Amino acid sequence: MTTEAVILGNGDYPSHPYPLNVLSQAPYVVCCDGAANEYIRRGFRPDAIIGDGDSLSPENRERFAGIFHRVNDQETNDQTKAIRFLQAQGKRQIIIVGATGKREDHTLGNISLLIDYMQEGLQVQMITDHGIFIPACNTQVFTSQPGQQVSIFNFGATGLQGEGLAYPLSDFSNWWQGTLNETTEYEFCIHATGKYLVFINF
Amino acid sequence: MTTEAVILGNGDYPSHPYPLNVLSQAPYVVCCDGAANEYIRRGFRPDAIIGDGDSLSPENRERFAGIFHRVNDQETNDQTKAIRFLQAQGKRQIIIVGATGKREDHTLGNISLLIDYMQEGLQVQMITDHGIFIPACNTQVFTSQPGQQVSIFNFGATGLQGEGLAYPLSDFSNWWQGTLNETTEYEFCIHATGKYLVFINF
Repeated sequence: MTTEAVILGNGDYPSHPYPLNVLSQAPYVVCCDGAANEYIRRGFRPDAIIGDGDSLSPENRERFAGIFHRVNDQETNDQTKAIRFLQAQGKRQIIIVGATGKREDHTLGNISLLIDYMQEGLQVQMITDHGIFIPACNTQVFTSQPGQQVSIFNFGATGLQGEGLAYPLSDFSNWWQGTLNETTEYEFCIHATGKYLVFINF
Repeated sequence: MTTEAVILGNGDYPSHPYPLNVLSQAPYVVCCDGAANEYIRRGFRPDAIIGDGDSLSPENRERFAGIFHRVNDQETNDQTKAIRFLQAQGKRQIIIVGATGKREDHTLGNISLLIDYMQEGLQVQMITDHGIFIPACNTQVFTSQPGQQVSIFNFGATGLQGEGLAYPLSDFSNWWQGTLNETTEYEFCIHATGKYLVFINF
């Protein structure tokens, strides 16, 4: 997909070259609140900073007042506030980096929100230091290298079947059941009815 | 609960004092494969090391050959191999530390396995650098400090209702929906029929 914008989340700052490259080559970068501090410290300038401002340094709040968009909504987290902000600009193809690695409940929440963004017609993927999360619905084909590790998390899909994967799929009811599969080809296909989340390890 | 054994997982080595204390005061410690390297480097001696041995250093493999239990089963991960090993000794009250913070699919898998262990009659909790994961079934009471952040992940439970929590519960269908709640009392109660996972932030 063509990336229209990258969101830098509130988790650990990326350390793997892949998310770091995505971030440095992004046409438009939105930082979630305090994530902007480290991004700016590294010499970058965000296009927008979104959040309630409680973790943004006073210095950056002043210096970047013109691009800081305070959103106080307690019903959504900073990641979703950034998505809404981009959605309002008509941006639909978005990559999220830096969204995992701190509090595990935040990590789980951030990952699972990809499913909701997909339901709203957005194309949002998450790139971590370890791999890429791709939300999917129904039968879909994914590109890969033979031997890449793949995990599939089921969000209510039925009839799950794989092609080009080492181990058979089933209608997984617990998260761990679809983990640690492996690709055997340069692409793999998941047949299903309904929603699921694919993680492809680098 | 009284802790009969602690499992040191393959994720990031704990850095918060709480899991570090649990580990240093454990009556019995099982290390998952390569996790033993860092544990031993810090001057501790595990009671057992479980895994396929591929991440244990050659030096430790030789030095601790007497307590290294090689399990080659490809169907389960090292965490579950350690659980099976303890279960065979009649140990039921187990704490897992060091199980999160590396590959996100491993983190998700390890966390969700708590639900399966509970179904087998074991009492297994996970302590991370950020909080504690407690698997639960039906109506249950949890101790807390007022103002602690709590997240609830639903594994098929229905009729979810909270007492002593700031925000109402419902039959959450996506992971993020039960996150970022907050305790208001010294204990809180979750009314439900079925399984769910509670995360209490320190």
